[in-house]
Amino acid sequence: MTKETYRLLEDYMLSCMDDSAHDKEHVYRVLYNALKIAKTQEHVDYDILITACLLHDIGRKEQFENPALCHAAVGSEKAFAFLTGHDFDRKYAEQVRQCIRTHRYRENNQPQSLEAKILFDADKLDVTGAMGIARTLIYKGIVAEPLYSLLPDGTVSDGAGDDIPSFFQEYKYKLEHIYDRFYTEKAAALAKERRQAAVDFYNCLYREAASAYQDGRKTLTGLLTDS
Amino acid sequence: MTKETYRLLEDYMLSCMDDSAHDKEHVYRVLYNALKIAKTQEHVDYDILITACLLHDIGRKEQFENPALCHAAVGSEKAFAFLTGHDFDRKYAEQVRQCIRTHRYRENNQPQSLEAKILFDADKLDVTGAMGIARTLIYKGIVAEPLYSLLPDGTVSDGAGDDIPSFFQEYKYKLEHIYDRFYTEKAAALAKERRQAAVDFYNCLYREAASAYQDGRKTLTGLLTDS
Repeated sequence: MTKETYRLLEDYMLSCMDDSAHDKEHVYRVLYNALKIAKTQEHVDYDILITACLLHDIGRKEQFENPALCHAAVGSEKAFAFLTGHDFDRKYAEQVRQCIRTHRYRENNQPQSLEAKILFDADKLDVTGAMGIARTLIYKGIVAEPLYSLLPDGTVSDGAGDDIPSFFQEYKYKLEHIYDRFYTEKAAALAKERRQAAVDFYNCLYREAASAYQDGRKTLTGLLTDS
Repeated sequence: MTKETYRLLEDYMLSCMDDSAHDKEHVYRVLYNALKIAKTQEHVDYDILITACLLHDIGRKEQFENPALCHAAVGSEKAFAFLTGHDFDRKYAEQVRQCIRTHRYRENNQPQSLEAKILFDADKLDVTGAMGIARTLIYKGIVAEPLYSLLPDGTVSDGAGDDIPSFFQEYKYKLEHIYDRFYTEKAAALAKERRQAAVDFYNCLYREAASAYQDGRKTLTGLLTDS
C-alpha cells in the first residue's frame, strides 16, 4: 500500500469517528496488533488487512445513535461504498467488506478469510487485560451506567446473575469469557498474558466497594433512631 | 439522627445528583468509609459527619456546567441554605458548611474539625486503589479525554510531563501522589492496602498500549511504499 492510500483511508476513518478520542485510539491498537498477529501467519494480504483494520469501526456512530443497528453491518457497507467510490478494485472492496462484517462476535456470522480472522482477533484482544477493563469503564462513563448493582440486602453484587447493566455485570457476562475465542495462536497467547491484570483489577475493585457497604451500612443502621 | 432526617438529607442529595449513577455511588462509599474511619476516633459528632458526607458533592453539577466554580464552595452554601431552610440549628448548619467547604484538596483551605478531616479522608480514599482508577476512567469517558497521548516519535507517553489531559497524565499527576495526604491513621492504612492495585493496573495498561504502538508502527512503516 502506498503512503497516499493509507492517508486516504486514515482520513476517512478519522472523519467517521467524530470527536471520540477512545474510538480512534482503539483503531490504531487494532491495526498495530493485527500486524503483530499477521507476522505469525503466511500469505497475509496486508493491503486488505490494513484497510479492514482502519475502517472496521466506522459504523460505531450509527449504532450509538440507533442501537438497533449493528456497527459491523453498517461499517462494512460504508467501507464498500467508500472503496468502490475511490476506484479501489471491486473484489478488493468486497474482501474488506467481508472482514468488517464478521469482526463482531456472532455465532452465525464468523470470519472466513485469514485477514478477517486476524481483524477479529486483534479487535477482541483490545477487550482483554487492563485495556479491556479501561475501555469498558470509559464506556460506562459515556452511557452513564453504574459500576455495580446492590443486592436486595443492600450489599454490592459481584455482577453474576445481574439483569441491570453495570461494570461488574459486563465483567461477569463478557470480559471474563473472551479468552478462548481466538482464531490465531498468537492472539490467544497475547490474551493469556493479559488475563491476570483484568482478574486482579476486578477482584480488588469488588473488595474495595463491597467492604465499604458491608461495614458501613451496619454502622449506619445502628446510628439511626426511629424518632 | 432519626431515620426521617436521614431520608430528608438523602432525598435532597439524590435530587442534586441528576442522573449520575457514579456520583451517587461515590456518596454512599464516602459515607460508609467515613463511618469506618470514625470508629477509630473519639468524640465524633455523627450527625454532623453523616450530614456532611451525604451533601458533600451536591455542588458537582454546577462545577461540571461551569468549571470556574468550585463544587466544594457551591455545595457548602447549598447545604447551609437547605439546612437552615429546614429548621436545623444554625450552628449545626455552619459546621456542616465548613466540612463541605474544606473537603477538596487545597493548600489554603484545609479541614479543621474532626468531622471535616474524616470527610476529607473518606473522599480521598475513593481516589485510591482500583476505585480511584475506575472513577478516573469513567470520568475520562464522560469528558471524552483520551487514555494516553503520543510522544513526538509516535510512541505512547507514560503521562509524566504531559500537558494534554489523559488518563495516564492524571495518574502521574494526581493518583500516584495522594497516598500521603490523609489526616487519620485509619484512612492512611486503608489507602496503603489499596495502593498496589492501582500501581499494577497502570503498569499493565501502559505495557499493553505501548507494546502495540512500538512494534506496530515499525511494521506499518515497513509496509507502506512511496508510490
